[in-house]
Amino acid sequence: MDLENTDAPPARTIRVELGARAYDILIGPGLIASAGLEIALRLKGRRMAVVTDENVAPLYLPSLLESLSAQGIEATPIILPPGEKTKSFDHLVPVVESIIGARIERNDAVIALGGGVIGDLTGFAAGIVRRGSRFIQIPTSLLAQVDSSVGGKTGINSPQGKNLVGVFHQPDLVLADTSALDSLSPREFRAGYAEVAKYGLIDRPEFFTWLEAHWREVFAGGEARIEAIAASCAAKAEVVVADERENGRRALLNLGHTFGHALEAATAYDSARLVHGEGVSIGMVLAHRFSARMNLAGIEDAERVERHLRDVGLPTRIGEIPGPALQPERLMDAIAQDKKVKGGQLTFILTHGIGQSFIADDVPASEVLAFLTEQLDAKGATRA
Amino acid sequence: MDLENTDAPPARTIRVELGARAYDILIGPGLIASAGLEIALRLKGRRMAVVTDENVAPLYLPSLLESLSAQGIEATPIILPPGEKTKSFDHLVPVVESIIGARIERNDAVIALGGGVIGDLTGFAAGIVRRGSRFIQIPTSLLAQVDSSVGGKTGINSPQGKNLVGVFHQPDLVLADTSALDSLSPREFRAGYAEVAKYGLIDRPEFFTWLEAHWREVFAGGEARIEAIAASCAAKAEVVVADERENGRRALLNLGHTFGHALEAATAYDSARLVHGEGVSIGMVLAHRFSARMNLAGIEDAERVERHLRDVGLPTRIGEIPGPALQPERLMDAIAQDKKVKGGQLTFILTHGIGQSFIADDVPASEVLAFLTEQLDAKGATRA
Ligand SMILES: NC(=O)c1ccc[n+]([C@@H]2O[C@H](COP(=O)([O-])OP(=O)(O)OC[C@H]3O[C@@H](n4cnc5c(N)ncnc54)[C@H](O)[C@@H]3O)[C@@H](O)[C@H]2O)c1
Ligand SMILES: NC(=O)c1ccc[n+]([C@@H]2O[C@H](COP(=O)([O-])OP(=O)(O)OC[C@H]3O[C@@H](n4cnc5c(N)ncnc54)[C@H](O)[C@@H]3O)[C@@H](O)[C@H]2O)c1
Ligand SMILES: [Zn+2]
Ligand SMILES: [Zn+2]
Repeated sequence: MDLENTDAPPARTIRVELGARAYDILIGPGLIASAGLEIALRLKGRRMAVVTDENVAPLYLPSLLESLSAQGIEATPIILPPGEKTKSFDHLVPVVESIIGARIERNDAVIALGGGVIGDLTGFAAGIVRRGSRFIQIPTSLLAQVDSSVGGKTGINSPQGKNLVGVFHQPDLVLADTSALDSLSPREFRAGYAEVAKYGLIDRPEFFTWLEAHWREVFAGGEARIEAIAASCAAKAEVVVADERENGRRALLNLGHTFGHALEAATAYDSARLVHGEGVSIGMVLAHRFSARMNLAGIEDAERVERHLRDVGLPTRIGEIPGPALQPERLMDAIAQDKKVKGGQLTFILTHGIGQSFIADDVPASEVLAFLTEQLDAKGATRA
Repeated sequence: MDLENTDAPPARTIRVELGARAYDILIGPGLIASAGLEIALRLKGRRMAVVTDENVAPLYLPSLLESLSAQGIEATPIILPPGEKTKSFDHLVPVVESIIGARIERNDAVIALGGGVIGDLTGFAAGIVRRGSRFIQIPTSLLAQVDSSVGGKTGINSPQGKNLVGVFHQPDLVLADTSALDSLSPREFRAGYAEVAKYGLIDRPEFFTWLEAHWREVFAGGEARIEAIAASCAAKAEVVVADERENGRRALLNLGHTFGHALEAATAYDSARLVHGEGVSIGMVLAHRFSARMNLAGIEDAERVERHLRDVGLPTRIGEIPGPALQPERLMDAIAQDKKVKGGQLTFILTHGIGQSFIADDVPASEVLAFLTEQLDAKGATRA
């Protein structure tokens, strides 16, 4: 219907089958420029609020607004400072008031254009305006495209901890424009890649093997990148459909995250030292090494995981984190404060090998402490 | 099991059949003093946060805390100023942080002890802490016992309008202690009674007839009061089970509320002039009179409704509201801003007679304006 778009390959579509709340994830290049059309095909509303950040706005907001306006959709932009600190009540409250002020009604929608920070905050705002407004995710970071934009977890941080305040609010549509990733910094791209590898490690060993063979093409862009993002979204969608509210299996998505979150907390969420995906990378290697130490898996698997993550340029050892050395006791404190702790005993995602992860809810804290102490003593010493 | 409690009649129980989110409403005297027991019977958690207001705290907080502590439940009280202004982000944020600080985990709960203001704010806070925490309602006003504590609508006000921010979050238990109503001011009791009468007017004509015969006993306390509260909760529960998210029938609960909200807005939510239930009382009479004017119902029904509400001491005419006279255009503006307006046309709950209300989504604004102008000209002139 639009000759300008015929040069772009058609987008992949993944349907998240959540009954009355089912929605499509579209993955492909040029989706921001055709967002107006995709939205108009699916939603009746003609008034939208677009929330984005100061880094993303100059790059993609004009093209999004133009494509909305071409479909007769009137959009109100709301631009926030970039960074994790934006995920706070201080920014949520004015966003909520701006959305109400934009007179978004039942069929209208709130659009998040940006990384996971913008997606989480905007989804939460959409979830509470009029007890739930329609919501569209246009993720622009790799992490947001393969993880945070899918599944309906939204929220902000509390001074007392990350993601402690929020709601489950599924989007009505996700548009993952893979061309937007070209402007992402290599470090942010790698961080998002840790979550891509995670899906292989959880329960798709053949996907992990494919990544080992094709990661260079994924980093270069083109078909392999689209393929990797689509496979990741499909993996996440499957888990979310099986267990939307994380009463069970969805917890597998936290592979590497208990250790990872502890590392983020111990480095005070200082992105100069560690970003989330880097913490997940180190955390996944630790989860595999700890599983080997508990005689649950062979050490070769841990080494294979580490080799791949190191190949793509991700950190894999605690000792690689720049700045003052981390103390095992400080990490244990952070683990104990993590929400995946029940009645004193530790819940971890452990593994029987690549693609064979499972939920272990009886991990002795003493073993974890002993393991961390060993890891910190070894400290990059065994680094190749 | 507790000899002290054997003198109180057993509480009535109404089950709200919402599948995985089903819960009990208990109605009867002395339930605050036995709250610990009722909670311990149903929830595993042994840590609770109790949110209440400065009026209710001195009256009922000590007895609640004592009954919780007798069951080994450790409770953190959070006391807020009373009044509608408390339903704001300014109070929500510290409540959320206090709940997190009280280390409420999966099986623990947040308790609301107070009127609708405390219930709405606390339910919202519980709904967003860790993306949804357990929640117990202990309503202490008549309005909260028969209306706001049941059904899962929670939220706060925006400077741009009432109840514009919130979530659906069902409680896990509702304890309506009817003895707590003895300390309620007569004006607040009457205001809550307007909502009781509303259930009869919506679709239970025999309940309305019963109220006409027994309202003095309801006001005096005892069995008839418990009966009226239980009948109201049962009526509300039925509607909520049929249409939890207000996609249809639940809108009937707004009988009298479009006019009522407009009156509240036009008097700037000044409770010295008008409280919510008083607005609903006048609004229900207006809805019946307007239905008669549209030849949908006989005028005798409107007169019968007005007679009953006037008998119990509620205002029934716009002209009875103290302060400067209200202008019909100002009321129309407020109606147009109400969220029950779709694409320019007005949605109203109208009626074919007592207990025969229905949703009308094609009410011409011109008719409403003409009607309000008439009513304001008549202004208490026809008041007996
Ligand atoms: N909701 C979930 O299920 C879920 C899952 C995982 C992570 N998260 C959350 O996601 C957040 C992290 O997401 P993130 O890594 O996308 O962080 P982010 O949103 O901070 O984005 C990272 C940086 O990249 C910039 N950026 C984004 N897209 C860009 C582009 N196309 N070109 C240039 N710059 C761009 C941003 O401005 C930012 O500076 C965390 O808050 C985390 O808690 C949520
Ligand atoms: N969530 C819903 O479905 C729903 C439905 C209807 C109304 N509401 C909301 O409920 C609120 C009104 O509720 P309300 O009328 O209970 O107001 P409220 O909570 O302000 O209580 C009225 C007054 O009575 C006092 N009080 C409460 N219990 C008392 C007692 N036992 N003894 C002495 N004083 C007592 C309070 O401190 C307050 O001053 C409004 O904000 C309205 O929007 C919500
Ligand atoms: Zn992650
Ligand atoms: Zn009401």
